[in-house]
Amino acid sequence: MATNDDAFTPVRIPAREVMPPPTISAAAQRNLSTGAGNPRMNWPPASDIEAWRRHVANVDPVREALFTTMLEGVKTPIETTHIAGVLCYDCVPEGHDAARDPVYLFVHGGAFVAGGGVFAKAVGGRAADSIGVRVVSVDYRMPPEDPFPAAPEDCVAVYQALLETIDPARLVIGGSSAGGNIAAAATLMIRDRGLPLPAGTVLLTPEVDLTESGDSFTTNAELDVILKGGLPDCNAIYAGGHDLTDPFLSPLFADYTKGFPPTLVQSGTRDLFLSNSVLIHRKLRGAGIEAELHVWEAMPHGGFLLGDVPENAEIQAEVARFIRRVTA
Amino acid sequence: MATNDDAFTPVRIPAREVMPPPTISAAAQRNLSTGAGNPRMNWPPASDIEAWRRHVANVDPVREALFTTMLEGVKTPIETTHIAGVLCYDCVPEGHDAARDPVYLFVHGGAFVAGGGVFAKAVGGRAADSIGVRVVSVDYRMPPEDPFPAAPEDCVAVYQALLETIDPARLVIGGSSAGGNIAAAATLMIRDRGLPLPAGTVLLTPEVDLTESGDSFTTNAELDVILKGGLPDCNAIYAGGHDLTDPFLSPLFADYTKGFPPTLVQSGTRDLFLSNSVLIHRKLRGAGIEAELHVWEAMPHGGFLLGDVPENAEIQAEVARFIRRVTA
Repeated sequence: MATNDDAFTPVRIPAREVMPPPTISAAAQRNLSTGAGNPRMNWPPASDIEAWRRHVANVDPVREALFTTMLEGVKTPIETTHIAGVLCYDCVPEGHDAARDPVYLFVHGGAFVAGGGVFAKAVGGRAADSIGVRVVSVDYRMPPEDPFPAAPEDCVAVYQALLETIDPARLVIGGSSAGGNIAAAATLMIRDRGLPLPAGTVLLTPEVDLTESGDSFTTNAELDVILKGGLPDCNAIYAGGHDLTDPFLSPLFADYTKGFPPTLVQSGTRDLFLSNSVLIHRKLRGAGIEAELHVWEAMPHGGFLLGDVPENAEIQAEVARFIRRVTA
Repeated sequence: MATNDDAFTPVRIPAREVMPPPTISAAAQRNLSTGAGNPRMNWPPASDIEAWRRHVANVDPVREALFTTMLEGVKTPIETTHIAGVLCYDCVPEGHDAARDPVYLFVHGGAFVAGGGVFAKAVGGRAADSIGVRVVSVDYRMPPEDPFPAAPEDCVAVYQALLETIDPARLVIGGSSAGGNIAAAATLMIRDRGLPLPAGTVLLTPEVDLTESGDSFTTNAELDVILKGGLPDCNAIYAGGHDLTDPFLSPLFADYTKGFPPTLVQSGTRDLFLSNSVLIHRKLRGAGIEAELHVWEAMPHGGFLLGDVPENAEIQAEVARFIRRVTA
């Protein structure tokens, strides 16, 4: 990687108003427009632990109502359980063949500091509904109480427990946003500890670079209606004083020539994390790892919000196809 | 496709200065910075044919000097020839096995109105150098004298002549920018006329939508240092009065459920044609066609200009791998 040079000439772009494009579904256009007025997220500084506790206590009930509605729409039966001592939501579709079918270990997003509980349960259930496989959604420990490496360690512990009864050739690890980071980090830990690798890894708009060095942190700032700007405070409180370039904190900087499973990477052209996605896709391929990239038109971070949006269903269809292929 | 709605709320983005990111090679950073001051291209209106003739007569000598230097660096022997009456540059690497090796029919870019002659010869030779296969670069007819469908018809004629001695399982059609459009259109014509399909299609930052409806025509305007904005005049003079949504003019609107070869699609996150690329990738996959997407960090339209840029070499390496795979 080269360092930036103050002598370089910047590109100058005038102020602009950007409408939803006609090239996406009507539902996606509506969601982009609805999101257009969103303020930036207002996270506390990483140094103020008490402010974090208050922040989470304030926002959790608001979010919980939304996620409870999401959860009510889930058809797959969900068992709340502990695996290797880690809280998990085990979403097992009807007809699941425990001896043969794929199992998707899913790591929820939420900027490393949110998204446990009802959200983790609802997104696990929705993934099981749409992908049609058993999903184990991990409610990993989070800061401020439990910073790095608690989250990927929890995922590795669950994976190791699943290995007792499930062939790794049937296991896929994946996650979205912060969950994509943790899924990649857990897979690297699995590799470096000599455990058998899963059959595949799914990185949905992943925050794989906590230094946020990618170009889209500038070019898609404000344009992404979900993530208006980077999350340095969340990244710092998660890192808990560790160097942000540590490959287990920023998997973009890992050495993939030592091996990694086939990987699906997803993003959108308006995604603040578009650069994260294309950079890790290229890094994997440069190391000879089989990796496929899927980028959706005008999509912000994390998909076109909630609701029945055809493009969101397309993501799940690609993930389903990928999981079936790598576990076949 | 849904239509846009005036009632939608736009995203408001303030004026900004965007530096080259530290996540790309030093050579790429230099080229982005060099390009930052480029003015918009100044094409004549499509209605003024005489202005087009003068414009081309003025710019050709300047470009020719640059492309002659490019051509001098080419190692592969190039024969200037006619195939099916169409001017071509046949670039045959040493050791090419005429009975077994892949052949890459390449369609040069240049906004449908430029890029013939020395440029077509030089890019064909460079492709042969870096990919290591025989490249037949087509110097197709262009407007204002010869608008659509002259260009794809020339490519189909060359393809059909090559079929007399070459198994289609060894043939790949590809092109860059306008050439990506023409390569896709020619492949659709080949299909619809019942000719055997090539083994693969390569669409490098392709102008597959002459209506320029994609989001990146807005979001990457000015940011792309090569193409600061769309090319409606070039598209109009090429279309010669035909409906721009005709699938042979805008292959994005074709029906791919009728079949298409495996396809490699390339773009960059700063590419004005990023939306073209992701939209056709998704459209192909939605129709069940095998298609792979490769997007480079901060790359503008057509790659990081000329010169020895590692990212440009990476594109050629992916194309080489793809051609070897689909013709294996």
